[in-house]
Amino acid sequence: MSRYFSEKYGGLVPYVPGEQPRGRSFVKLNTNESPFPPSPYAQRFAREAAGDLRLYSDPECRRLRETAAEYFGLAPDCFVFTNGSDEILYFAFSAYCDSSHPAVFADITYGFYKVFAGVCGVPARIIPLKDDFTLDPEDYFGAGGTVFIANPNAPTGIALTPGDIERIVAANRDSIVVIDEAYVDFGAGSAVGLVNKYPNLLVTQTFSKSRSLAGGRLGMGIACPELISDIETLRYSTNPYNVGSMTQAAGIGALLDREYFEECRNKIISVRGSTEKRLRELGFDCTDSSANFIFAEHPRVSGETFYRELRERGILVRHFDAPRISNRNRITVGSAEEMELFLAAAGEIVKAAERKDDGGPGD
Amino acid sequence: MSRYFSEKYGGLVPYVPGEQPRGRSFVKLNTNESPFPPSPYAQRFAREAAGDLRLYSDPECRRLRETAAEYFGLAPDCFVFTNGSDEILYFAFSAYCDSSHPAVFADITYGFYKVFAGVCGVPARIIPLKDDFTLDPEDYFGAGGTVFIANPNAPTGIALTPGDIERIVAANRDSIVVIDEAYVDFGAGSAVGLVNKYPNLLVTQTFSKSRSLAGGRLGMGIACPELISDIETLRYSTNPYNVGSMTQAAGIGALLDREYFEECRNKIISVRGSTEKRLRELGFDCTDSSANFIFAEHPRVSGETFYRELRERGILVRHFDAPRISNRNRITVGSAEEMELFLAAAGEIVKAAERKDDGGPGD
Repeated sequence: MSRYFSEKYGGLVPYVPGEQPRGRSFVKLNTNESPFPPSPYAQRFAREAAGDLRLYSDPECRRLRETAAEYFGLAPDCFVFTNGSDEILYFAFSAYCDSSHPAVFADITYGFYKVFAGVCGVPARIIPLKDDFTLDPEDYFGAGGTVFIANPNAPTGIALTPGDIERIVAANRDSIVVIDEAYVDFGAGSAVGLVNKYPNLLVTQTFSKSRSLAGGRLGMGIACPELISDIETLRYSTNPYNVGSMTQAAGIGALLDREYFEECRNKIISVRGSTEKRLRELGFDCTDSSANFIFAEHPRVSGETFYRELRERGILVRHFDAPRISNRNRITVGSAEEMELFLAAAGEIVKAAERKDDGGPGD
Repeated sequence: MSRYFSEKYGGLVPYVPGEQPRGRSFVKLNTNESPFPPSPYAQRFAREAAGDLRLYSDPECRRLRETAAEYFGLAPDCFVFTNGSDEILYFAFSAYCDSSHPAVFADITYGFYKVFAGVCGVPARIIPLKDDFTLDPEDYFGAGGTVFIANPNAPTGIALTPGDIERIVAANRDSIVVIDEAYVDFGAGSAVGLVNKYPNLLVTQTFSKSRSLAGGRLGMGIACPELISDIETLRYSTNPYNVGSMTQAAGIGALLDREYFEECRNKIISVRGSTEKRLRELGFDCTDSSANFIFAEHPRVSGETFYRELRERGILVRHFDAPRISNRNRITVGSAEEMELFLAAAGEIVKAAERKDDGGPGD
């Protein structure tokens, strides 16, 4: 940190993204990317746009908004597009939190919420999840601040029902409720249908997971036009050309190809189920995931050891060295082939630990 | 604005980007885009990256940083890449301005500086340019805040010499000086060579103008590693994957093709010269532009009229309805063919005004 850096960032601890390995080739199950390429339409549209980069991208994302409007059955002015969904979340923290409007979120959730609160200099009110990692909706009634809920939650994968989401939104009429639906397509019910009913609801989604566009960087906010207009004020005050032409094109292609989207999503849900079943057979405890990852622990292998042993075998998963969850790992649901490799390694690691516990030769 | 929008943005006036016309086809000389496509390498690399979007982009932009390091003859940790150069400017306002470190900039300069100060909630100290739109370096000695200078300046196109830039940087050891070099490649001297000498110097550049990648969204900051580390702290606290894979690839291709870059840049400089000459023959006053635009006024045609009359003839330029410059227009240097169309229209408009002034039939 230089001596010029503003004192207001004195205690700021940045987010640490999952490792992007280089050199050695890993089975990469650590950042919740899709095992499938984006829709051929997304690729083709992006390639075409790559031949036409001389002009600025459309700051209004008109075609993309119209495509999304058609897709979700809402008006185009219910959408704002951003450089990944981290950017719409940052805008939400900026727009709706300040010293008298704290950010309210769970102790175990997307780790970036705490960082956003820090960089925006706003207080955070942390509400612990229950012992089983479920969220009690009533804990958020009259939350007294801007609520951020990931649904399904990360890294637990546990989802609230749309009914519970609605109860929370309805019980916070004087505050914004942000529902972060980065993983919603893998089995949870979306709150998008509620945005015209509740003027205090902002839903965020990403194209990085279920639409396989992590490298394309596209996120979106969905809300009533009045909230979208707040976000647009911030977007036009920081970076109006925030979504490039290739990204807009890829997003349009991804939305138009609903069939491919559903095919990929269904495969991931199916592989998640079969992987969880086999992990449980190996003695793992898995949360009830509605996301494209599994959050698992084993009574005989620490989270740290499991992470390290997998890594030695060329498999990357995500381990969070944080209270309550350090014994678990978050394992992205990859292709069926990748999960076979993962399960074989997991089986080896568990058996070695059991041999060691039973007095056999350990490590 | 919704009733939830934080009061801290009460007076915020967003930036208004230049018009992106739809429907009718215009000769587009209003947002300083290049008339030439990006390097074939940039296009090819971007197309290739479009086939590989499943994984997150490299948050460290390693290959891009190494390519830039090679290009500029600096270490890779002297660079940070952003989603266009507006993002690096926003980071600079965030990192180095606060209530006790105002932003210091000219009355006539890139209009976004005032917006960034507004969105960051920091005071601005505005220093008027001289009557001829030149900047007196001594006005910035001991500026008492974070200095933002566009060099060449926009919309005037007038450049400071590298010697004057160095005097300003040296005279503000306790403050950051940001030199915004969006247009530097069209005839001004860059301050990049000074970053290792001055720990208070941050240079920003964009790939939107001289590298024809406006639609790709790539900007960069160049400074000593300690300042880059400040910016990285903010980047990792807001949007670590801010530069997508296609954009990184396009940027690498653009930097590798130095020959194409110089060819395009030289053509633009040449067309700027011939256009200015003919504008002067028509009676226009043009500032001494080192950028890819011309800033011109005519004694007999108001800036507003000239803008409107050009628009009716299918030619878009940029008119700023602001004090001291409302009688001028900023005209992007397009292709030789585009400038012929522009000059023909300009000639018509001037002749009509002169006929009218001379008592002939006017509009």
